[in-house]
Amino acid sequence: MSKILTPVETAGWLKEHDNFLIITHRRPDGDTLGSAGALAQGLREQGKTAYLIKNPEATPRYIKYVEDYFMPDGFIYDHIIAIDTATVSLFPENALKYKDSISLCIDHHRSNTMYAGLVCLDADRAACGEIIYDILMSVSGSISCKVAEQLYVALSTDTGCFSFGNTTSNTLYVASKLVEAGASNKEINKKLFRTKTHSRVKIEGILTSGLEYYFDDRVAIASITREMMEITGADEDDIDDIAALPGSVEGVCIGITIRELTSPDDCKVSVRTRAPYDAQAICANFGGGGHKLAAGCSMDKSITEVKASLIEVLDTMI
Amino acid sequence: MSKILTPVETAGWLKEHDNFLIITHRRPDGDTLGSAGALAQGLREQGKTAYLIKNPEATPRYIKYVEDYFMPDGFIYDHIIAIDTATVSLFPENALKYKDSISLCIDHHRSNTMYAGLVCLDADRAACGEIIYDILMSVSGSISCKVAEQLYVALSTDTGCFSFGNTTSNTLYVASKLVEAGASNKEINKKLFRTKTHSRVKIEGILTSGLEYYFDDRVAIASITREMMEITGADEDDIDDIAALPGSVEGVCIGITIRELTSPDDCKVSVRTRAPYDAQAICANFGGGGHKLAAGCSMDKSITEVKASLIEVLDTMI
Repeated sequence: MSKILTPVETAGWLKEHDNFLIITHRRPDGDTLGSAGALAQGLREQGKTAYLIKNPEATPRYIKYVEDYFMPDGFIYDHIIAIDTATVSLFPENALKYKDSISLCIDHHRSNTMYAGLVCLDADRAACGEIIYDILMSVSGSISCKVAEQLYVALSTDTGCFSFGNTTSNTLYVASKLVEAGASNKEINKKLFRTKTHSRVKIEGILTSGLEYYFDDRVAIASITREMMEITGADEDDIDDIAALPGSVEGVCIGITIRELTSPDDCKVSVRTRAPYDAQAICANFGGGGHKLAAGCSMDKSITEVKASLIEVLDTMI
Repeated sequence: MSKILTPVETAGWLKEHDNFLIITHRRPDGDTLGSAGALAQGLREQGKTAYLIKNPEATPRYIKYVEDYFMPDGFIYDHIIAIDTATVSLFPENALKYKDSISLCIDHHRSNTMYAGLVCLDADRAACGEIIYDILMSVSGSISCKVAEQLYVALSTDTGCFSFGNTTSNTLYVASKLVEAGASNKEINKKLFRTKTHSRVKIEGILTSGLEYYFDDRVAIASITREMMEITGADEDDIDDIAALPGSVEGVCIGITIRELTSPDDCKVSVRTRAPYDAQAICANFGGGGHKLAAGCSMDKSITEVKASLIEVLDTMI
C-alpha cells in the first residue's frame, strides 16, 4: 500500500535522502524527460547525487541534453524515483528489474497503479512538470534557469503550448514563473511549435490532400503508408502528434489515422474524438485501449481492410 | 503633447469620468476588439456608460459578440478612448472625424504617435489586453468572467496561443489570472488554434505542395491565386495568418506569400524573416513597409513577375 505525499512532504523526503536514480517512461516525451531532468538538476543544486536511468528509446531531438543526466556505469543508488509513469508496464525494459523497489513515484495520471512506496500524485495537473515545480520550490524556495528550461519543455509539450484542454490556470501560472526564471520560451516555442521539418511539411501535404470523409463529414480518416514515409524521408519525430490532424478539421468529431508499420498487413490506428464520441469504445472493438478522447489499436490488416472494419463499427455507433 | 499615464493613473482617470466612446483599429483583430470590449464591460460594471464605435470592417467570427457593445444611434459621448491603435491613420473611416479629440489612448505599440491627450503605453506588453487587465484590476480589484473571456481572446490571438516571441512572463501570468476568473480557454483555444475550416485545410494542402524553394532552401515562396480561393471556397478568415506558412519550414529564413487580389496584375506580398534578414528592407524596394521580421508590399504585376522581382532583390541581399 502506497503512502500519499503532498509536494511539500515529498520535498521534505528528498531533502532527507540522497543518491537517487530516476526512471522515465517508455516512448519518452517532453514531460517525463523534462520533469526527470529538472528534478535531477534541482537535487544536484542541493548537493545531492541524482541520475536518470538511460531510457533505451530515442530521446526527442528537442531535449537531447537530458542525456547528460544519464547514469554512468557503477553508480550505486539508494532510492529509485519514477516520474510521470502510471504503471510498471510503462517502465523501459532496462528498468523493469526495479519494479518492486520504487521508493517514490511523482505523477499526474489518474490511472496510477500505486506501485511505489511513496506517491506524490495530482491528476488535475496538465503536466507532471507542474508537480516537480511545486516540489523544487518547496525544496529550495527558488528554481534555477537550468531547471526552468526543462520544466518549460515539460509543460509546453504536454499542453501543445498551452492550447490543449488540460491547460489550467496553474499551468499558465507555473509557465510564467519558469519564463521569469529564465526559460527560453521564445526559442523553445519556435523550435517545438512553429517550425516544421521539410519531411513534416511534405507528409502533412500528402495526408491533408488525401483526407477521406465519412458520415456527413463527421469522420475523417488519414492514411500513412510506408511509401509515404520513404518518399518524404519522415522519421518518428517528424510525425509526432500527426494523429491530431484529421480531428482538427472543422465539424469532424472522430479523427482517425491509420499507419502501415512493418508490412502492409500491420497497421496501427489512432483515434481522436470530441465528446460525446468515445475513442476508447471504438478501439475496444479491436482489442485496443486508451482514453475517452484519444485511443488506439493495432490490426493485422491492410489499410483498406482497416478502413472497412472501422466504418462497419462506426456505422453502429454514430 | 500627450501626458503619459501609468495603468493606475489611467484607472483613476476612468473612475472620475463617464460616457466613453471606444475606438478600435482598422482590420480589427482579437487584441483591439477583445481589449475594447473588456474595457467597455469593465466600465459598465462600475456603473459607467461605454460603447464601441461600430468598426465598419468585418468582426472576426470568434469575437462576434463584441458587436453587442457597438454604439446605438444618438449616444452622446464625453470622452473618446482609442485602443491598440498606434496612429490616426489606423482609425476606421467612420472614426477619422474624431482624430483631434481623443482623450485617452491605451496601446502597446512602440510606434505610437502620441496623438491623444493622455496615453497609457507599454511597448513591452505582447498584447494591449495585458494593459487593460492592469487598468481594470486597479479600477475594481477584480475582473468578471465576461471581462476575462474577452481579454483571453486578446492575449491568445496576439501571441499565437503564447507561442510567439512576444510572449513574456507577464503575458502568461495575466493569462493564468484570466482562466482563474473564468475565461473558457479550453473552448477558445479549440476554436482558434486547434480547428481548421475545410477551406483552410484545402488551401493549406495546395500551398504546401506548391511551396517553391530558392537560395539553398533559405527562401520559400507560397502563391495564392484567385482561382485557389474560389476552388477552396476560402474567405479572409480562412487565410488569416497563412503568411506564416512558408517561414515555418525548418531552415527557411525568408518566407514569402504572394497573393493575387482583384486581378492577375494586382498582388500583395507578405514577407516573414528570421534575424538577421530584414523583411522591411526587402519590402522597401517595392514601396512597402512593416517591421524587421514581418513586412509587406503591393505590386501591379503577375505572380510570376512578382517572384522574379523578389528573387532579383534577394540575390543582392542574401
